[in-house]
Amino acid sequence: MGIDLKPIGVFDSGVGGLTVVKALRELLPHEDILYFGDTARVPYGTKSTQTIINFAREDTEFLISKDVKLIVVGCNTVSSTALEILLDNYSLPIIGVLEPGAKAAALHTRKNKVGVIGTTATIKTNSYPQKIRNFNSEVMIFSQACPLFVPLVEEGWENTEIAILTARQYLAPLLAQKIDTLVLGCTHYPLLKETIKRVAGNEVELIDSAEQTARQVKQLLVDLQLISPRQNRGSHKFYLSDIPPNFVGMAERFLGEPISHIQREGNFPG
Amino acid sequence: MGIDLKPIGVFDSGVGGLTVVKALRELLPHEDILYFGDTARVPYGTKSTQTIINFAREDTEFLISKDVKLIVVGCNTVSSTALEILLDNYSLPIIGVLEPGAKAAALHTRKNKVGVIGTTATIKTNSYPQKIRNFNSEVMIFSQACPLFVPLVEEGWENTEIAILTARQYLAPLLAQKIDTLVLGCTHYPLLKETIKRVAGNEVELIDSAEQTARQVKQLLVDLQLISPRQNRGSHKFYLSDIPPNFVGMAERFLGEPISHIQREGNFPG
Repeated sequence: MGIDLKPIGVFDSGVGGLTVVKALRELLPHEDILYFGDTARVPYGTKSTQTIINFAREDTEFLISKDVKLIVVGCNTVSSTALEILLDNYSLPIIGVLEPGAKAAALHTRKNKVGVIGTTATIKTNSYPQKIRNFNSEVMIFSQACPLFVPLVEEGWENTEIAILTARQYLAPLLAQKIDTLVLGCTHYPLLKETIKRVAGNEVELIDSAEQTARQVKQLLVDLQLISPRQNRGSHKFYLSDIPPNFVGMAERFLGEPISHIQREGNFPG
Repeated sequence: MGIDLKPIGVFDSGVGGLTVVKALRELLPHEDILYFGDTARVPYGTKSTQTIINFAREDTEFLISKDVKLIVVGCNTVSSTALEILLDNYSLPIIGVLEPGAKAAALHTRKNKVGVIGTTATIKTNSYPQKIRNFNSEVMIFSQACPLFVPLVEEGWENTEIAILTARQYLAPLLAQKIDTLVLGCTHYPLLKETIKRVAGNEVELIDSAEQTARQVKQLLVDLQLISPRQNRGSHKFYLSDIPPNFVGMAERFLGEPISHIQREGNFPG
């Protein structure tokens, strides 16, 4: 078949990348999508650099073996640690979640004051500030690790009083700095968007990395003339290295639609 | 020097085991304590069984190289995954945190209804229910994973409204079962004891694994005639495989006293 009819591949260490799939399906509804979640080895953020690189290569090669036309790294850890190496080693187009969000923030801010929230691992790498300054060297960046947000989302507790109080606590120092732009630097955070919006107020523009990444994917497919010419809605298929008991329900919340076709991909060491 | 004058060794994947050190220092104030926290490779709970066993052996051998008289595995993951292997491979006395708490719960419950809370990894292994039933086969056990509790404690948010609301959410199904005994099955949880007590009420006895482990250590030292004969307060010394920027403050909250003598132990792979 023509390359344009091949699926888009997305991988992540777990379920977070499904918010990228959701954004892709909204923006590119005719594309087929293959997802690989390395749920047996999640989280990546606490692992050594070399291990993250090895895992990222295995994930990429798995998606290449499924004949995808483009790969989205739906994982902040891999995007900040291994993207360059993937780009050097594989010939198909590969897009990470870091740069699209960083670029959007750099271009959006009027007061040159940007907040970045993410996991402890992501904030530690300092990747967002570096990327944002590549696009706009004048920006002041205020970072905040939010270690409770991922478990909050995974429990399904977004939009609860606990979520609001937690967001207030984390955002207070950023709001005190009068940021006008806030990067949701973790693929779990789109589920907390309403809560964060409520706490941050209308003055602060939220930059959703998943959405920005989907836009960049669309632009790249247009540029490379790889947009699917189909008129019907694309399919999605999910491969996981482990299927935890509560996976389907959680995944459907991330994806915003029912999931069929989950398959265990057992070639990865536990 | 006599074996009785040697230090007690305690290890954990991170800071959690410091609550065991705290309990040991309350119950055995004349003992010297050496702590090893494998902070470079924390958490263990998400790693494969073989990796956990390898790490546990390295941690044990490090403490043995420091000439300790007894080792406490201050980590639920290692206690449930690797304790038997450690006992088979090393000749000094080794005590885990799992069995003391399980035993205390089995002996304490009057209504034979015990709740167990822990990390997702600990609850998944089903180790507490198995151990509790070894001591009392009649007990009904209700388990609840509490993934927000560890980040709550690490943020220093115990005794906040967020902590209380979170505890209410997690404990509701256990309280609905009319448990009379609740095992704090994670070495982070002693810091949440007040919050949990407030939510669970006076009818529910909290079993603090760290405290129970310290009691068992004392009993064993008495039995083996290894109690330190010193009259002055014992020293403590901390080795870590990585020293995160916020470590000292967090560690002092876990330990309940100031920390000096932190040393980076660099022989472990990142």
